Amino acid sequence: MEASSLLVDSAAASLCATTAARRRAACCRGSRFLRCSCSSARDHGPATKAWGLNSSVDRMLRAVKSSVSRANGWNGNGHGWTAAREESSVLDALEDEYGGMVVDADRLPSDTGVFARSLAASLSYWKLAGKKGVWLKLPLDRSEFIPLAVKEGFRYHHAEESYLMLTYWIPDEPCLLPANASHQVGVGGFVINGQMEVLVVQEKYSDSTLLGAWKLPTGFIHASEEIFTGAVREVKEETGIDTEFMELIAFRHAHNVAFQKSDLFFICVLRPLSNDIRIDETEIQAAKWMPLREFLEQPFIQEDHMFRKVSDICVQRLRKRYCGLTAHHVVSKFDGGASTLYYNVAGPERGDLNRDAA
Amino acid sequence: MEASSLLVDSAAASLCATTAARRRAACCRGSRFLRCSCSSARDHGPATKAWGLNSSVDRMLRAVKSSVSRANGWNGNGHGWTAAREESSVLDALEDEYGGMVVDADRLPSDTGVFARSLAASLSYWKLAGKKGVWLKLPLDRSEFIPLAVKEGFRYHHAEESYLMLTYWIPDEPCLLPANASHQVGVGGFVINGQMEVLVVQEKYSDSTLLGAWKLPTGFIHASEEIFTGAVREVKEETGIDTEFMELIAFRHAHNVAFQKSDLFFICVLRPLSNDIRIDETEIQAAKWMPLREFLEQPFIQEDHMFRKVSDICVQRLRKRYCGLTAHHVVSKFDGGASTLYYNVAGPERGDLNRDAA
Repeated sequence: MEASSLLVDSAAASLCATTAARRRAACCRGSRFLRCSCSSARDHGPATKAWGLNSSVDRMLRAVKSSVSRANGWNGNGHGWTAAREESSVLDALEDEYGGMVVDADRLPSDTGVFARSLAASLSYWKLAGKKGVWLKLPLDRSEFIPLAVKEGFRYHHAEESYLMLTYWIPDEPCLLPANASHQVGVGGFVINGQMEVLVVQEKYSDSTLLGAWKLPTGFIHASEEIFTGAVREVKEETGIDTEFMELIAFRHAHNVAFQKSDLFFICVLRPLSNDIRIDETEIQAAKWMPLREFLEQPFIQEDHMFRKVSDICVQRLRKRYCGLTAHHVVSKFDGGASTLYYNVAGPERGDLNRDAA
Repeated sequence: MEASSLLVDSAAASLCATTAARRRAACCRGSRFLRCSCSSARDHGPATKAWGLNSSVDRMLRAVKSSVSRANGWNGNGHGWTAAREESSVLDALEDEYGGMVVDADRLPSDTGVFARSLAASLSYWKLAGKKGVWLKLPLDRSEFIPLAVKEGFRYHHAEESYLMLTYWIPDEPCLLPANASHQVGVGGFVINGQMEVLVVQEKYSDSTLLGAWKLPTGFIHASEEIFTGAVREVKEETGIDTEFMELIAFRHAHNVAFQKSDLFFICVLRPLSNDIRIDETEIQAAKWMPLREFLEQPFIQEDHMFRKVSDICVQRLRKRYCGLTAHHVVSKFDGGASTLYYNVAGPERGDLNRDAA
């Protein structure tokens, strides 16, 4: 790590004091049991980890910075940084505990030229400093920065409606940056009443081979929604029936379902709390209480391995002490908060739907 | 729908013949049990749904097209379209069964100006034709098109390393476009040998409060990987121990874990098939077989509600006939293929780990 290269890359060094002032351990890595709800580097809060300003590299960089600042007319107070910063400075970023840099999306320059130069300078600096991954979150109103980042070697990581996250892996070794969400999650409600009738729906939009089939109410859970909440909500929205979650009896795992992602579908047993059906005409053609036998005898169930298996499980849950999983609220100080644990409560009778429905 | 507006928007009408020639029902909607593995509109295969060329709107559009083509020197054969197409034509796109348009990512123009004009023309045309959602997939080498699409009103939907998917919802009603993946999925392996010792690891990168803790091997499953495969793989990678998946005994559901997405963590019981530990030094500090009692008595388990609950479940599985879920291969003709169904097999003893380990 030669000082001459540092002097040449003065732009990269010009803001090491600014970035050093924001030392902290970031997260958003999705490491096991590590929770982070921030959407911007700014949300991380007080610094908890030094950026290594005591290292030999940083001492060299401080020397370079001093030279650069004097050349740029910096008089040693914070305000004088502005001219140098705006022109070609290292982007404001926080360090995470994995040797990565998280660019502050709230402090991006507004000018594309400045951004391009700052990004190049930042990468040079971070490479020099031995950093590994770089996270660059670009909001919608900075979409013109995207091709500039791509040109520098950034790749897309994930996107939400209002931002695109790009990443850059610096070292010449396998990339260790965590991937984004890989699964969509759906729920289906098996609701049976005291007359041994199953709550079923006919969908308006369906694969042509399933048109006309009477199936269980199903749907995707919402962002940050609980499985047990989503199942009750979907049944309510599609049929107007109020229910209570009892247990999860099975789930299916499939791949390449949509956008080449995977799918987890949880089959939930729900206890009906009302009887009068009112459908959501946006998605549902019709809904009714159908005798269990008639439901099971439908061709699409009888002639399909998967549907038959799922139906068998539902029937077993009705007739035997089937060991499904119940939902339990748990709290962890390491995890940052509450979550739901699904497991089987061994011991006394789990609950006979026939008895419950009577 | 006035003909005059169609004549004015000649660019929008100029390619209705071309797009009509590619009538089909697309998918990639993530509807329940609907599987699609395509990454480009081109992958969809033969057309199966008419684009409504018999409708009155399309008859009018054909009339407009004829006028435009004559004005542009089209002599009625396919080749003559090229000049008109390149200049300001409706983008090549396929129609899906929900009234949406899926732009063909393999047939995007290369020029930004042409793209900008085509996009505007396409939106005008699709609005006129009563289309609903528009899916625009832009590969990395078309990143300069992104700000143009954003300017037209497109929003980000999701991204993978090499492309960004944008969407545009046309109607003035709630958007019905499906969301992308919302969950990351992790697995943990509970491996116990004949000496009642648990396979545990100390991680190199861990929350500071968990530093030094001996925990179960855990990790994220890979894209399109099975839970039961991922658990075995993670244990192998971290410790060198070969195992066999037995069952899934519980899972935890948490929210706002990483990138504001949710997390599903599946605890799997695995039978050890080897004994000699060899760690992955990239991520693991150390690994060993630890007496069960010692494992359970660790402070991070004793003092934390969630960890204590998970440990209790593991112990129950050891001592009783705990009803976990086993993995079963299922096939569905409606679903497009194979998937894994996890459920409890009611009946005979499930398998006593103590007995199995003896």
